[in-house]
Amino acid sequence: MRELYLVNGSPYAWRVQLALEHKALDYELRVLPYGPDALHSAEYLALNPRGRVPTLRDGDFVLYESLAILAYLDRRYPDRPLLGTTPEETGTIWRVISEYTAYVDRAVEELILPIYFGRAIERAAEICEAIATLAGELAHFERTLSRSEYLAGDGLTAADFVVFPHLQSIRRASSKEAARAFDFTFLPLATQCPAIAAWISRIEALPGYARTYPPHWGSATAGPE
Amino acid sequence: MRELYLVNGSPYAWRVQLALEHKALDYELRVLPYGPDALHSAEYLALNPRGRVPTLRDGDFVLYESLAILAYLDRRYPDRPLLGTTPEETGTIWRVISEYTAYVDRAVEELILPIYFGRAIERAAEICEAIATLAGELAHFERTLSRSEYLAGDGLTAADFVVFPHLQSIRRASSKEAARAFDFTFLPLATQCPAIAAWISRIEALPGYARTYPPHWGSATAGPE
Repeated sequence: MRELYLVNGSPYAWRVQLALEHKALDYELRVLPYGPDALHSAEYLALNPRGRVPTLRDGDFVLYESLAILAYLDRRYPDRPLLGTTPEETGTIWRVISEYTAYVDRAVEELILPIYFGRAIERAAEICEAIATLAGELAHFERTLSRSEYLAGDGLTAADFVVFPHLQSIRRASSKEAARAFDFTFLPLATQCPAIAAWISRIEALPGYARTYPPHWGSATAGPE
Repeated sequence: MRELYLVNGSPYAWRVQLALEHKALDYELRVLPYGPDALHSAEYLALNPRGRVPTLRDGDFVLYESLAILAYLDRRYPDRPLLGTTPEETGTIWRVISEYTAYVDRAVEELILPIYFGRAIERAAEICEAIATLAGELAHFERTLSRSEYLAGDGLTAADFVVFPHLQSIRRASSKEAARAFDFTFLPLATQCPAIAAWISRIEALPGYARTYPPHWGSATAGPE
């Protein structure tokens, strides 16, 4: 039995669910409510001492940290590879993933979390700084996706699944009332970053995508904007 | 020809150099002076648009981001594997690496950089917070290394090479005049974290280790403390 523990809407868990669908692996979702009651329960901490999501249980093997789960899945189920078939592809895919983690992820969190948790006004300076960082990083993605179909070349890879959920989360956060005070210079993607918008459409058209869409976001076909 | 571009003392570059030595691969060091003149030169930005180190050139292939370089090297030169030989090992190694990146790396930077760049007093609150974070994370490493020889099991892996340089950098920073105002509760490692200290000694005893030691730090056998 394969089980994915997640909180609905977690971009980190979404990465793994996209990979499971891509590899056509069966899995059951174990949806945890947001907050310490479930995430810091003794039962869950026994699986994931960090009390975070996602956690994958695959038979007897339990693993947490989304990037580690992607690396495990690609080695355990090598069909439809996500981390490359040559050393150069593998290096390039991890380069894109590492750049996201090192230079983009924190700005996404600093943008989204205050908007969702009612702290947008007191964190306005950090949000504006995050938007400026993201504008530069999205311009970089836009250039990449103007030259290739996917973030690490012309084939779909783990790099796409690592970045994609966060861009959807940004789009969703930007639609909230608390986001109105801010100028998301890179939105809407359709006009500001058309290559990124086309890439999102390609991922949204993947088989199984609708099953990965956060259920409380509404219809997957409408998108978060 | 294989070339590693680095700034002396960069823990990120040190990771790669340890991997190259482990795999007994020849390489030439291209040492860049710290600062924008070299790192942001047109010549270097053509290799690494982020203007950071390390960058590896392996024949015609150029790659940056330390974790990506480790993934590339392990696929290109599979002897003496660093990222596991089973899916479970691979997952566990990347789990340790991801945990370091997500929960430890920023605290190391927030501790070390102000000490080196003469801003320890104005950043005292952040430094104290970083020390508290690191005390918790080092306790976690200490428990792991009390049960196994290395961070991802009883064999040396990329997880060890990812974490090790940063611990050496912390020890070195703690020896600076500007660090005297702070209580590094986890130092000296020999008494506070004996399993970590023994693990450091094992890595320091690896063949080729002395070649990876930052030359301006003095003698590799004396260690940074």
